[in-house]
Amino acid sequence: MSSLDLSPAHFRRLADRVSTLAEEWLEELDTRRIAPDITGAASEAMFSEGLPEQGLGDASLDALKPLMAGTRAGNARFLAYVFGSGEPVGVLGDYVASVVNQNVTAWRSAPTVVSLERSVVRSLANAVGCPGFTGSFTGGGSSANMMGLAMAREALAPANEDGSPSGVMYASAEVHMSIPKAVALLGLGRKNLRLIPTDAQWRMRPDALVKAIEEDRAAGRRPIAVIATAGTVNTGAVDPLRDVARIVREHGLWMHVDGAYGALAAMAHPEKFEGLGEADSLSMDAHKWLYQPADCGVLLFRDAKAARRAFSFTGDYARSLTADAVEGFAFFDESMELSRRARALKVWLSVRFHGLAAFRESIRRDVANAKRLEGLVRETPALELLAPATLSAVCFRYRAGLEDAQLDDFNTKLLAHINRRGRVYISNATLEGRFSLRACFVNHRTTPEDVTTVPREVLAAAEELKAL
Amino acid sequence: MSSLDLSPAHFRRLADRVSTLAEEWLEELDTRRIAPDITGAASEAMFSEGLPEQGLGDASLDALKPLMAGTRAGNARFLAYVFGSGEPVGVLGDYVASVVNQNVTAWRSAPTVVSLERSVVRSLANAVGCPGFTGSFTGGGSSANMMGLAMAREALAPANEDGSPSGVMYASAEVHMSIPKAVALLGLGRKNLRLIPTDAQWRMRPDALVKAIEEDRAAGRRPIAVIATAGTVNTGAVDPLRDVARIVREHGLWMHVDGAYGALAAMAHPEKFEGLGEADSLSMDAHKWLYQPADCGVLLFRDAKAARRAFSFTGDYARSLTADAVEGFAFFDESMELSRRARALKVWLSVRFHGLAAFRESIRRDVANAKRLEGLVRETPALELLAPATLSAVCFRYRAGLEDAQLDDFNTKLLAHINRRGRVYISNATLEGRFSLRACFVNHRTTPEDVTTVPREVLAAAEELKAL
Repeated sequence: MSSLDLSPAHFRRLADRVSTLAEEWLEELDTRRIAPDITGAASEAMFSEGLPEQGLGDASLDALKPLMAGTRAGNARFLAYVFGSGEPVGVLGDYVASVVNQNVTAWRSAPTVVSLERSVVRSLANAVGCPGFTGSFTGGGSSANMMGLAMAREALAPANEDGSPSGVMYASAEVHMSIPKAVALLGLGRKNLRLIPTDAQWRMRPDALVKAIEEDRAAGRRPIAVIATAGTVNTGAVDPLRDVARIVREHGLWMHVDGAYGALAAMAHPEKFEGLGEADSLSMDAHKWLYQPADCGVLLFRDAKAARRAFSFTGDYARSLTADAVEGFAFFDESMELSRRARALKVWLSVRFHGLAAFRESIRRDVANAKRLEGLVRETPALELLAPATLSAVCFRYRAGLEDAQLDDFNTKLLAHINRRGRVYISNATLEGRFSLRACFVNHRTTPEDVTTVPREVLAAAEELKAL
Repeated sequence: MSSLDLSPAHFRRLADRVSTLAEEWLEELDTRRIAPDITGAASEAMFSEGLPEQGLGDASLDALKPLMAGTRAGNARFLAYVFGSGEPVGVLGDYVASVVNQNVTAWRSAPTVVSLERSVVRSLANAVGCPGFTGSFTGGGSSANMMGLAMAREALAPANEDGSPSGVMYASAEVHMSIPKAVALLGLGRKNLRLIPTDAQWRMRPDALVKAIEEDRAAGRRPIAVIATAGTVNTGAVDPLRDVARIVREHGLWMHVDGAYGALAAMAHPEKFEGLGEADSLSMDAHKWLYQPADCGVLLFRDAKAARRAFSFTGDYARSLTADAVEGFAFFDESMELSRRARALKVWLSVRFHGLAAFRESIRRDVANAKRLEGLVRETPALELLAPATLSAVCFRYRAGLEDAQLDDFNTKLLAHINRRGRVYISNATLEGRFSLRACFVNHRTTPEDVTTVPREVLAAAEELKAL
């Protein structure tokens, strides 16, 4: 007997306790505070003892309830950042992934799970209008973006062998922070990421992109890649993908689409993403707009050879000993990861349970919810719309009775106060230097009635704040 | 009602079905074939239809059993690569992580879960002899190694702003493939990773390291970091950490330890890892020698400022609005990740259930199991030991009645045949150009009796192979 042994029956008893907690969590989700009522000090104190030398056995599970009480609830009115709502069948897919604990490195290591992941990747690629693309699941959009840019670098300005990469990349001024981070990690230098001005709808301006590329060319620098954003984090803007694709082709560059937030919505609203299929690489996050539990990023690419050029460094101990193309397949030849969790399993179970059609419908409802909030903000004199809902993010601020100079400070305090009340949870954006409240709908639980709660809570919190 | 709605009671019924499958999986684990009897074509065919347009509802769970039957079983005699055994309480911790679906980006996003992760990181750092280190969980050793080297680059040869990184890194000739991959991704160029010769026990030779650094200095190149390995993937060798630390200090370099395989064993055998606490950064994989379900890597570092120098690129929309140090804490300022799963939760639940002492005991048993196999190989005339068990990997080959020239080919076929028989599952290594069978013990289920199965299966498979 091992010191860690646990009988299957004992496991089952513990599993039932966790399932009971999960069921209660789901039952109470809609009525509990979203932001937990806990301070940093109290939260640190819960874990100040560290891991114990002697085990607590079954009693160790007693700490789960207080732990869960101190988390943020992803209920119907959690509308902050861009973070999906944790669809419960996906939760069970994740549970299976942990039970079978396959290391999804290569087919030989996890046969059915590797085939499952490849199939899910192909299906999602088809669903968003990128037929024929392959790829893999990643920890999230940051990894997927970094891998897409690494492929671009190796395709156009190879540095894997000799180092000292140089070249220029282009993205809109509304780019997500993971892109400058990736450009820096890849050794290209943040100074070599050009931030292209946007139009009135926060979309990259094609004329400004061409001008920047031509200026760099004229100065003897080497343009490598354009990063188009399909769903900016601030306002949900989708860059003009067809125009970007044409420019990229004319200049012989790589087109990466950061679709972490938006690309999966192409399943439901293809008209908003025309040109997506012309990308060379594309990131999307199934833990955002496919409502899956984190982590569940996806990198798609047009040409697997480009992925292998960037990532294939196989050591002898991991080299395949078969000639069969399927049985010799290794994700680590096309990814920066080696050990990998079966992240695709939750998507597979969740989508097979509900069907793609139900996801399309839910995404359409999110978009409609955002339009509804936009309308409510427009109708409310105390509120000012700062960005219309082009995808599913709505930016606005409170302004009744305030001077222009007070707006940023008041709305900053107002955001904290709204979230502290616990009924809705939203976040913020800075638009042309103005502090904005921001609600983002990637939540399968949100109903039209929940949408009306948002302006009501904003107004109530503003009144309270003014009375303080 | 959303198109994706599922009542808590319905969720519970599905959860019970999954728990039943999990219980059966655990009950049958020891008696089933390790390598499933499935071809690449059959495995692909299972998923050839892709994701369905219309959902299957409860019937979608029917596919779980065939899926699970086509996976590789991590039972007591799975001894390949370096991959932990999926401790079942850890599985339940993972289940909770999916239920609460916190995005562990920053304290404000997941209060108790962030405090939990910081506490688990501190506890593990203490347990392996690195008190005061902080860090974060990662997808695995590849990410953790890459982040450690990114910190080294930014500390000694900053390239985040201007790009064109240059400098030299050093590792032993037995280095894991994730290191050249990371060096290449960071733009330093694989040619600038020096592979230092090893001694008779496959450990980096300090004299050769000093020589290489001095040669690079003399040639005007800039040494940046030494990567010491604490548990090489081939033989489990631990580089001479104290010597490396001294050399690193003398030359003003960064010391990263790739402890993905071995470092957690410092909990049980600190005498094998003297000098580990002198690292600047350290990777370890809790899904290896802490038996947790994947993915569960850890990056530790001595100085959080160095992590922030490498990774802090915060966009406005994610900027903290508080002055409280705990409440303002963000993992993404110290990591290349933004969205993050609650990976620490399984470690927390599993270790609190069993206690650190039980993990220490289990690790000691793994080391003893490896020594036992080494002894059995030595006693068996048909087998030849190719590397002794310094940690928990044993390398050997079959040689009875074979010419030297036949050994590589025969043992290559033998490995496939052993694994095809399904009773044990081992992998391979190439040692001084020789193909070696390799068993690696990071498995809490393996008993001394299981160890005796290994040579028995190798001999039986060799007889069958010769008779073919």
